Amino acid sequence: MAKALTKKSEDYSLWYNELVALAGLAEHSDVRGCMVIKPYGYAIWEKMQSVLDSKFKETGHQNAYFPLLIPKSFFSKEASHIDGFAKECAVVTHYRLKTNDKKEIVVDEDAKLEEELIIRPTSETIIWNTYKGWIESYRDLPLLINQWANVVRWEMRTRLFLRTSEFLWQEGHTAHATEKEAFEETLRMQDIYADFAENWMAVPVIKGVKTPNERFAGALDTYTIEALMQDGKALQAGTSHLLGQNFAKAFDVKFTNKEGKQEFVWATSWGVSTRLIGALIMAHSDDDGLVLPPKLAPIQVVIVPVYKSEEELEIISKKAGEISQDLKKLGISVHFDSRDGLRPGFKYAEWELKGVPVRLGIGMRDLENNSVEVARRDLKTKSIQSMDNLSETIENLLGEIQEQIFLKAMHYRNSRLKEVNSYEEFQKELDGEGGFLSAHWDGTAETEELIKNETKATIRCIPQDGKLEDGLCIRTGKPSQKRVLFARAY
Amino acid sequence: MAKALTKKSEDYSLWYNELVALAGLAEHSDVRGCMVIKPYGYAIWEKMQSVLDSKFKETGHQNAYFPLLIPKSFFSKEASHIDGFAKECAVVTHYRLKTNDKKEIVVDEDAKLEEELIIRPTSETIIWNTYKGWIESYRDLPLLINQWANVVRWEMRTRLFLRTSEFLWQEGHTAHATEKEAFEETLRMQDIYADFAENWMAVPVIKGVKTPNERFAGALDTYTIEALMQDGKALQAGTSHLLGQNFAKAFDVKFTNKEGKQEFVWATSWGVSTRLIGALIMAHSDDDGLVLPPKLAPIQVVIVPVYKSEEELEIISKKAGEISQDLKKLGISVHFDSRDGLRPGFKYAEWELKGVPVRLGIGMRDLENNSVEVARRDLKTKSIQSMDNLSETIENLLGEIQEQIFLKAMHYRNSRLKEVNSYEEFQKELDGEGGFLSAHWDGTAETEELIKNETKATIRCIPQDGKLEDGLCIRTGKPSQKRVLFARAY
Repeated sequence: MAKALTKKSEDYSLWYNELVALAGLAEHSDVRGCMVIKPYGYAIWEKMQSVLDSKFKETGHQNAYFPLLIPKSFFSKEASHIDGFAKECAVVTHYRLKTNDKKEIVVDEDAKLEEELIIRPTSETIIWNTYKGWIESYRDLPLLINQWANVVRWEMRTRLFLRTSEFLWQEGHTAHATEKEAFEETLRMQDIYADFAENWMAVPVIKGVKTPNERFAGALDTYTIEALMQDGKALQAGTSHLLGQNFAKAFDVKFTNKEGKQEFVWATSWGVSTRLIGALIMAHSDDDGLVLPPKLAPIQVVIVPVYKSEEELEIISKKAGEISQDLKKLGISVHFDSRDGLRPGFKYAEWELKGVPVRLGIGMRDLENNSVEVARRDLKTKSIQSMDNLSETIENLLGEIQEQIFLKAMHYRNSRLKEVNSYEEFQKELDGEGGFLSAHWDGTAETEELIKNETKATIRCIPQDGKLEDGLCIRTGKPSQKRVLFARAY
Repeated sequence: MAKALTKKSEDYSLWYNELVALAGLAEHSDVRGCMVIKPYGYAIWEKMQSVLDSKFKETGHQNAYFPLLIPKSFFSKEASHIDGFAKECAVVTHYRLKTNDKKEIVVDEDAKLEEELIIRPTSETIIWNTYKGWIESYRDLPLLINQWANVVRWEMRTRLFLRTSEFLWQEGHTAHATEKEAFEETLRMQDIYADFAENWMAVPVIKGVKTPNERFAGALDTYTIEALMQDGKALQAGTSHLLGQNFAKAFDVKFTNKEGKQEFVWATSWGVSTRLIGALIMAHSDDDGLVLPPKLAPIQVVIVPVYKSEEELEIISKKAGEISQDLKKLGISVHFDSRDGLRPGFKYAEWELKGVPVRLGIGMRDLENNSVEVARRDLKTKSIQSMDNLSETIENLLGEIQEQIFLKAMHYRNSRLKEVNSYEEFQKELDGEGGFLSAHWDGTAETEELIKNETKATIRCIPQDGKLEDGLCIRTGKPSQKRVLFARAY
């Protein structure tokens, strides 16, 4: 590697930025706040999309596509929604450029829009404006739609994957006949996100509901999955919103129920974004680079030949070809790194940086011994394995790595999930290891705000599996019935 | 059907609009010029994407993602490029809204951008600005990147799928060390588009090169595939551009060649869009609705039960479940239409409208006879088939339908591809059946423009397989060495 990675323990933030760059995942573009997702980073996103898309379809959702541009007036229809998004909107005001007298390209003032258009920061308004035409009777419900799209939210301070002015995401928008059905859908999608985070991303998450302060603008309730990064900061990995009848009322979407009466429709919306790639990086990676869980790794196995002559390379290449074929038959993605003129050690470091879960090293002696050197990225251990049944060996190993990465993250997360009972303890933990702090809170927005201002910690969620327990708010000493989870967060 | 479809022969344009609406493919949104792609239309796009994406990857391309917004100054760097796109740009000028004294939501004039941003109409400029940082030596070449994205080109007169202000597409952008390699890539991608059009969409196409007038803004040459719709009008179905060193020079992208010398990089770009869905509809469909080639049909087989009681429905459903399982094993997508309270005839008409290639009708008598009624959408014929080996029967039938739809379109296209040798003949054909008119042209932009103004016909392409032949321009009588293809076009 031309440039060594800064150690995580030295400067976590710098480590992250360098890793994203060196592993070839993404870079800042010359367009303020917007990123370029490079092929290797995009390949991870494609894997994520493919899994999530299947899960959405298995649960009856269909994809569709709605306009990028939304008339300004649509936003004003749902009061809290516009409050939440007005501050970060990219606004289209003109539809033509022209050349002026000085031969410069300028905006053509004659081509000013009558009504400004907003680049979607989220699509509730345009979608509910459309649903008005799609829903007449209970027979049209539920309407279960998802959209894969780009959105723009003008951000002043950006960070690759975690916070960018444009990002890619999916947004589900469903319509139901009853609040109960909408509520079930909200939880179903939260469950799908949790399942995806834990069983594909290998990132353990806590399921909970947001406080009114942290709710989506326009929702009755926001359900979230919260993950912990290796620096002790939390990251909201996906949200599912129970929107109630707010958007149906704002856009006058009614249906005729089975009794022939008109009712407003019940709604949900839910989304995850390219932010998940940031979570994936920060949850598992180490000082040598990315650690990717096998289920989301664009390349699961890399084969590196160790040779001294062209003849040797040719013999090893033949064997590598056979191994690749066998692995591909099992659905395992494999890459043979036959680049000439680079030392094996250089290649090893590069594939470690890119987080490929398993590396096979094959030299002439291995061929003689009918064996191969198998290195696993997560533990950085090596072993000699027989060529016999190698693809099954690798398949099992990939499963083991997936599990191990999850267990390690779970162990870390659990070690950073603490009950605290005083404000002193709370502040000490925050300034120490960080992590999730389970504490009593008096339930008021004022106290929440106060704690945030004093400590930069926010309430990540009220855990859904939290039990009732009498206690006193750590800040005000007022009574509380349930602990909530605080953390400093991305 | 609540509403019958207008006959194609009565009003082709109205037929198209009604069909897109009734089959549930897309609709106009309340945002000027932008469409909503409904689930059934989007499912066709997903099928197209999946096939094309595989073809791109098989030929060594990787996906990536570049910003939606492009600084105005980037456009000005390539002179002919800005000329081509300036007239149809959506311009972002502000990044915030606010509430004014009258409690109205207005654009915040304090949040004006220093430099306006353009919503990408195509991404050559932002991508070549990025490639500058990615390319240093010949070892970095070729760079073979594709992007799936939305683009905006402000259109005054829009038509669903065919011409909308926002559309979805893919755009490939490649960088090469030599003109020869770039040229080969240009032709390779044109071939992939032609293969996709003919063998998946079942739409025969003519491969050719565009005249300078019709070239992409900034290209040395534009290669195209041209299809013929059932009203005798042509449709450009995909283009592949040899960009030469134009963008490399505009963005100063050089590489060190094997001899250690600095050279400008050679470029191509190529794209197809949701316009292909319009082509698919117009190439095959009839007065009863869509006719979809099996390879792109979201549902390939629909099973409709014919029953008189709930008991009968239950028995038929069981059989339908078995058939579905067998078909799915062969990778055939199947839908069982168990909706109650709708007559079979109503369901038949609906699935015909939606273009499902094969319909199975199953009643109690069919079960007794171990048979099933098989209806094919393209020919509107029915036959009785044995339940034995039914999935193989269906699989063969789908292949036969795919071929038949292509042959029918090919037969039609060939019957509308005529050599004409005088301007009178040319005008008569255009006002008659339309189609592709192969004629001599003197090679000047003036004559091309004149013919366009007089007849609305444009030169679709100079066919790549056209032979040299002495002749006289149909309009000016000047000498010509090769025929070109004229047509009125979408």
